[in-house]
Amino acid sequence: MRSSYAVGVDVGGTRIAVGLVERKGRVVKDAKRLTPKTGPFAVVDTIIDLVEEVSVGAHQSEIAGIGIGLPAQVDFTRQSIEFCTNLPLAGVDMRSLVMSRSKTDVTIDNDGNMAALGESRYGAAKGARDFLMITVGTGIGGGIFLNGELYRGSRGLGGEVGHVVVQMDGDPCPCGGKGHLESYVSRPAIAARGRKAAEKPSGRKIREAAGGSAEAITAESVLMAARSGDSVAREILLECGDTLGRAFVGFVNVLNPKLIVVGGGIGEAADFMVERAESVMEAEALAGRRDVSVVQAVLGNDAGILGAAALAFDEYDAHEGMH
Amino acid sequence: MRSSYAVGVDVGGTRIAVGLVERKGRVVKDAKRLTPKTGPFAVVDTIIDLVEEVSVGAHQSEIAGIGIGLPAQVDFTRQSIEFCTNLPLAGVDMRSLVMSRSKTDVTIDNDGNMAALGESRYGAAKGARDFLMITVGTGIGGGIFLNGELYRGSRGLGGEVGHVVVQMDGDPCPCGGKGHLESYVSRPAIAARGRKAAEKPSGRKIREAAGGSAEAITAESVLMAARSGDSVAREILLECGDTLGRAFVGFVNVLNPKLIVVGGGIGEAADFMVERAESVMEAEALAGRRDVSVVQAVLGNDAGILGAAALAFDEYDAHEGMH
Repeated sequence: MRSSYAVGVDVGGTRIAVGLVERKGRVVKDAKRLTPKTGPFAVVDTIIDLVEEVSVGAHQSEIAGIGIGLPAQVDFTRQSIEFCTNLPLAGVDMRSLVMSRSKTDVTIDNDGNMAALGESRYGAAKGARDFLMITVGTGIGGGIFLNGELYRGSRGLGGEVGHVVVQMDGDPCPCGGKGHLESYVSRPAIAARGRKAAEKPSGRKIREAAGGSAEAITAESVLMAARSGDSVAREILLECGDTLGRAFVGFVNVLNPKLIVVGGGIGEAADFMVERAESVMEAEALAGRRDVSVVQAVLGNDAGILGAAALAFDEYDAHEGMH
Repeated sequence: MRSSYAVGVDVGGTRIAVGLVERKGRVVKDAKRLTPKTGPFAVVDTIIDLVEEVSVGAHQSEIAGIGIGLPAQVDFTRQSIEFCTNLPLAGVDMRSLVMSRSKTDVTIDNDGNMAALGESRYGAAKGARDFLMITVGTGIGGGIFLNGELYRGSRGLGGEVGHVVVQMDGDPCPCGGKGHLESYVSRPAIAARGRKAAEKPSGRKIREAAGGSAEAITAESVLMAARSGDSVAREILLECGDTLGRAFVGFVNVLNPKLIVVGGGIGEAADFMVERAESVMEAEALAGRRDVSVVQAVLGNDAGILGAAALAFDEYDAHEGMH
């Protein structure tokens, strides 16, 4: 029998969101809580609590499994957490811990991959066999679909599209590299440029968007000022679009995808940054690759939950298929 | 019955090389000629002549087919030539033209893909399911193997690994883009840096390697001077290695291959450029991706012929499998 629901878990550096999801992608019930900072077991406890909360009323046999997206480098084949920058999860056997308490099958993966799977199954990339997902937020993550499947690389670690070099000997990246896309296009990078611009009188509107204090300027302040028509803020986002577009040139020339989906908090909000990136890609990519569509993601905050649920359905179906 | 031979054709901007190849990768007979510059039909005539020359003595039924690698963007599914920078082949139905005259099945593909297929089947990448081939010569080409197969992208146009941006607003690239890897690491780029270095007294050794004339300096002069221990020439190649390494960082973070194979005239000769690129990749790639091996190609000038022959064998086997 085909189970009707899957539970999708989206673990972020700030909050954990969990949803009970129908096969067609409707989130029947969801719940979220702040991510505990007191160690891996507290994270597992919170996941279990939230899973129980959303599953109330659904029979165990109706649930295909639990999918968990993590802000970490996950070796998918081994189902192990290799590295995790913001949470102490490296080496933690998350899958077994959650499985032993929930008595339900669990599969873990990287959060960028989950966003890609979510948009593929239920969102902006439906039907696209070859596409690239890029999430622009506090960092840059993403995932790659090739030949109709998530491509995870030789150790399950592929898809880190924010960590391509766009500038030799460029700005330091939080990952330890230099001149990566994430060093130039992300919340902290946009905020830093906003604060710099606000030192001059011409940056007044950006300071105002942050309530008048230069230190309080965030990426969202820059976005807000740009939306209200401020040309200095707009220029910051257009320059980010230029840089994003240069990274797209490389992706398109190497991978020749049909579609690039831009998501994440910044990616979904900054439409003219994304439009500029598309223009640069169209102008500078090799001829024949310029028919790539660049679109914004549509699932918003639900992308992670929906992708993780899709993963749980896929694992359930693959397993049932073997009987 | 399994055919014993395939014919591999390697069309270059300068010469066309053809070989009769056994299944195990032995080139039984080969022949080459300068690439005619008088139009597409002259190219087809030359291919037919060379195919006949190497096939003498082999019975038609023993030949699985003809594979042709082209210095062009090939839409593999449609078997059409989309773009070709150095030869007037765009839009030419090469496959049908050669097939109608040779009475043998013909398959065409991009030359970088053929080098990757050759190294995969018979060379440095035997057994690697996920690897990246990069050929450094007059331009930079390459191919990508993912999950044990050539990855060609949504229109068959993937694998142009020389056309990733390594420098925003950087030097112009022959393809029309800006700041691409090929703008910094290729025969013309190395020669230009050699000529610039030779303007100073410290560049004496490079000038000497070109017979004393600064205008005669080529990439090979720089290589020669570097090999004889000249530190200025060595520094040029090490800087190319830095740039190549930065591109590797992106490839490794996004695709997580097991192996990077560096081929092409320059790639196979400049061992310390390749070693430097590997060091940069190891220092700057995301943790967990640093166990990628960077190796030099081993098939030399035969890579194109062997890869094209492997393609012909594969197409023959896939076709036979359908009966």
